[in-house]
Amino acid sequence: MVKTAVILAAGLGSRLKERTVDKPKGFVEIGGVPIVERSVRQLIESGVERIVIGTGYRHEAYDDLAKRYKELVCVLNDRYADSGSMETLYRLKHELKEDFLLLESDLLYDPACLGNLIADPRPDIILGSGKTDSGDEVYIESNNKGFVQNMSKKAQELHSLDAELVGICKISLDTYQMMCSLAEAEMKNTPKWDYEYAIVAAGKRKAIPVKKIERLAWCEIDTEEHLRRAEEHIYPRIEGKQITAKLSVERNILLNPGPATTTDSVKWAQVVPDICPRERSFGKLMEWISEQLTLFVAPKDRYETVLFGGSGTAAVESVITSVVGEGKLLIISNGAYGERMAEIANVYEVDHEVLTSPPISPLSIESIEDAIRSSKSKITHVAVVHNETTSGILNDIQAVAELCETYKVDLIVDAMSSYGAIPIDMQASGISYVIASSNKNLQGMAGIGFVIAEREKLLALQNHKPRSYYLDLYKQYEYLKRTHQLRFTPPVQTLYALEQAIIETQIEGIEQRYRRYSESWQTLIDGLKELNLECLVPLEYHSKIITAIKEPEHENYDFEEMHDFLYERGITIYPGKIGKTASFRIANIGAITKKDMERFLGIMKEYLDRL
Amino acid sequence: MVKTAVILAAGLGSRLKERTVDKPKGFVEIGGVPIVERSVRQLIESGVERIVIGTGYRHEAYDDLAKRYKELVCVLNDRYADSGSMETLYRLKHELKEDFLLLESDLLYDPACLGNLIADPRPDIILGSGKTDSGDEVYIESNNKGFVQNMSKKAQELHSLDAELVGICKISLDTYQMMCSLAEAEMKNTPKWDYEYAIVAAGKRKAIPVKKIERLAWCEIDTEEHLRRAEEHIYPRIEGKQITAKLSVERNILLNPGPATTTDSVKWAQVVPDICPRERSFGKLMEWISEQLTLFVAPKDRYETVLFGGSGTAAVESVITSVVGEGKLLIISNGAYGERMAEIANVYEVDHEVLTSPPISPLSIESIEDAIRSSKSKITHVAVVHNETTSGILNDIQAVAELCETYKVDLIVDAMSSYGAIPIDMQASGISYVIASSNKNLQGMAGIGFVIAEREKLLALQNHKPRSYYLDLYKQYEYLKRTHQLRFTPPVQTLYALEQAIIETQIEGIEQRYRRYSESWQTLIDGLKELNLECLVPLEYHSKIITAIKEPEHENYDFEEMHDFLYERGITIYPGKIGKTASFRIANIGAITKKDMERFLGIMKEYLDRL
Repeated sequence: MVKTAVILAAGLGSRLKERTVDKPKGFVEIGGVPIVERSVRQLIESGVERIVIGTGYRHEAYDDLAKRYKELVCVLNDRYADSGSMETLYRLKHELKEDFLLLESDLLYDPACLGNLIADPRPDIILGSGKTDSGDEVYIESNNKGFVQNMSKKAQELHSLDAELVGICKISLDTYQMMCSLAEAEMKNTPKWDYEYAIVAAGKRKAIPVKKIERLAWCEIDTEEHLRRAEEHIYPRIEGKQITAKLSVERNILLNPGPATTTDSVKWAQVVPDICPRERSFGKLMEWISEQLTLFVAPKDRYETVLFGGSGTAAVESVITSVVGEGKLLIISNGAYGERMAEIANVYEVDHEVLTSPPISPLSIESIEDAIRSSKSKITHVAVVHNETTSGILNDIQAVAELCETYKVDLIVDAMSSYGAIPIDMQASGISYVIASSNKNLQGMAGIGFVIAEREKLLALQNHKPRSYYLDLYKQYEYLKRTHQLRFTPPVQTLYALEQAIIETQIEGIEQRYRRYSESWQTLIDGLKELNLECLVPLEYHSKIITAIKEPEHENYDFEEMHDFLYERGITIYPGKIGKTASFRIANIGAITKKDMERFLGIMKEYLDRL
Repeated sequence: MVKTAVILAAGLGSRLKERTVDKPKGFVEIGGVPIVERSVRQLIESGVERIVIGTGYRHEAYDDLAKRYKELVCVLNDRYADSGSMETLYRLKHELKEDFLLLESDLLYDPACLGNLIADPRPDIILGSGKTDSGDEVYIESNNKGFVQNMSKKAQELHSLDAELVGICKISLDTYQMMCSLAEAEMKNTPKWDYEYAIVAAGKRKAIPVKKIERLAWCEIDTEEHLRRAEEHIYPRIEGKQITAKLSVERNILLNPGPATTTDSVKWAQVVPDICPRERSFGKLMEWISEQLTLFVAPKDRYETVLFGGSGTAAVESVITSVVGEGKLLIISNGAYGERMAEIANVYEVDHEVLTSPPISPLSIESIEDAIRSSKSKITHVAVVHNETTSGILNDIQAVAELCETYKVDLIVDAMSSYGAIPIDMQASGISYVIASSNKNLQGMAGIGFVIAEREKLLALQNHKPRSYYLDLYKQYEYLKRTHQLRFTPPVQTLYALEQAIIETQIEGIEQRYRRYSESWQTLIDGLKELNLECLVPLEYHSKIITAIKEPEHENYDFEEMHDFLYERGITIYPGKIGKTASFRIANIGAITKKDMERFLGIMKEYLDRL
């Protein structure tokens, strides 16, 4: 875990004119606090123990600051007027013996990004953001794997503008040493070399990933206009979060499979000024949400997201009723959610066949192939649940997708309980439709179901005869594209909560989220063993999202009683759903950590001891 | 408008023991303020200018209080130990020369109820609430018109327990004088006669209405247990409202036909601890919401409400696809929403016929009768929109209902834009299905559509073949009844907002709400005349909910420009929807008043003057 930070603070800040006559630009105040001091406090709160500041212009201000914070060390670059930021960074060589966070001094930012960089297991990361239109952007060009290729303020120098440089990076000691070596050569000719060029140069020798957080609240303050933007837009967003954080809402630990525990910031995001959802600005919000939901699983140039007001099942119904035309649907069912797809197909008389598989063992790809081959009428679509909430089994959609590829069949994946945690790559896997909802791993509020589909597939639905009116996939897609509105009044506030939930998912990152979930799951599995409780599904097939557990075989045991015992202590558990095996279920999704799981296990022990 | 209040404060309060040894019970403190002083402040804030307090036990405390509030007058009942509350009220005779609010001294309550009683045009009102289980209830028995019949603490003395006496009433001077005359006779034998008996006695001579606000936050503090309940449950609810009121949300005036402007308290009601919607307590919330939604338009013993996660259209689709079996549906269409019902029937191939009527003139009942009679297959259902948002015309559903009665046809009313404002009596009118949503006149958040239906009709759907899965009306009904859960994850937070919106609708009352809306509408109509703008529909057919207005005939006029001009000033207007007549629309629903409409008219004038 990174415990050191570097702040580059030698610059003149001459574009802020009289504001920086007698102090460095890090000392410009917003909300009554110098921006660099806010940054120092945020670093300390995030667990950083040592902050090395490379000073220069008006360095006395930093020397004074260092007297008030024991974590600070100042190192002067006395050639600050004639050198670049790399020189300042180079001069910290004797102080830097481990990985560190690297920050510019003139930043105002949402502190959540610090925790994110620290928790990310990758040793080097360049933090990027979406478009800010700040007028002084450093653009990042990255390759298709997300590794940095180039950075520049001049857009024309880059092949693509993939992100904007925030000015916060995580740098490993190894990369730092490489940057220093490169600098020794380069700075002879170019004394004003900046640190970002050194990173780009290092990036040619090793892969340095760019982490893009689309709507990160941040800004650099280099000009009066930046300052105004900071005060009017960025500061209120960051402070609003701090204020509502103090009005904390009673915290329940939900171990049911969604709606999951949410953060307070997602809860507060529902409180917004009233808006008519037919307004253009609301249309923009929905378009942004749709695009981000796509980007979690597919490239946006070929895939689109269609939103529905309703539960996840509404979105499933939309796909089942909209996409199967003359053809036939093969539904693979190994639990309640596979069954549900069959029920939908039944009601609408969609031509289909159900392949039932046991709920606690993996799918047999051979049987699926047999079913496709032996069907009298041509199977055009296969539908499968990714993580079957019934048992917690993770179905191997990759294998099913390969089969579908072979037989030229469209694959529909109900990813309700996997999307947002278990990585999915629709394009690489060849999945045509992914269905999910706002309230599970996305950690948003319930009320929105959505479908992500290949654009080409959506457009091909144009002439299909619709089976449902409210859940007509093509019309819903076409209408939003054309009018920037949903066809029917959407749950407005739930969409604002979803926006915040997406931002938080992007800050954490899907892989990191799944790592956190997996930790909670591992804690659960270890704890169950100690409690002599058994899982229904063999461990290797677990989704690590939800776990079905055999009920204790004790004559005094009663699920309702156990539920109430936990519920009174702030923990919600979920009953079982598999055939005749008496079971209950524990999900580990939402804004919870393994500490919450430990708490659950402790209370379970207390309950079981009482029996 | 009532400007006087009376507080009855003579009692001993002996059940609070040491707390009332040296002070009257009104001086018991909650949140650091004596409850009677809070009440005094709330009365003054509600516009009361004179408060007469009938004192007795430890009257000095009130005399001191009167020194701090110029509005207070104290009148001593020196026989307080041997008389009842009517004696105290009787002794105020010389001070009371007009209608007044009558309050007990030991109440903690949501001050919204004061404004409600003051604004209610009826001169006498007994404020009642739903069940409190406080353990010291005075029950009210009322007749089917809602007039008081009897009151007692002994449930067995009453024929029905229709409400609980809050201890806040509005009493006209006439009623007061009647109570006094009755008291002169009665108190000779029963000196300890209480004021509620005097009201009941007066109620035998004149009709005195009981106004029941189901979930009013209130309690009386007579015992230690009451005090605990007040501190733990009632005070946080009332204070929570005050605190969030200070965190006010930017106010936009929405003049679009819903989602409407909401109160801050409805916005904040979305922020709740996370809960799994399969929990029993959430089931209770949904059951309560369903019951209250029924009660706005029908008696709960014969009618039921079925909730759906989705827009109002989802609920319409549910009815159209679920209720028409072998029979045929006649859709009366005089606007976009009639048309929408036809589109739904088309998609699902529900046997139907559309009777089109011009959008700006009233329905021809004869044509409807003709259509029913001349249909080759038997018409079993008629569907009509109550308030057609397209034009703002109010369709005469009463006349259609009578026709349906004659021909034994079930009537379906799309009441999306009327429910919650325009009174509907399903039973008296003979309407089988009413459809509405959470976000229009109910002033809640979007995300829930609902159907109110005769229970018998719902039960009869059991064997119908479903056409939709998500929107299966019978299954949705049956599942909630059986499991206390919705079939599919509901929009949890939207339901909490709806709970608050229902409470606020009950506090205001549907008739009062429609009066407020009508005032805004009248202001609009008067203002349009001054601006030389013309309505599309003749005034006598207006719903007074939304108004379609011909666009100004000026070459520089542009709807988008006008919209943006208003939008920048915090006001949202809505485009038109009727055929070829260039029009725009102004709705007057939501938490707005005629002042907001005046503001809109002022800005419109400014815009038109610029043209």
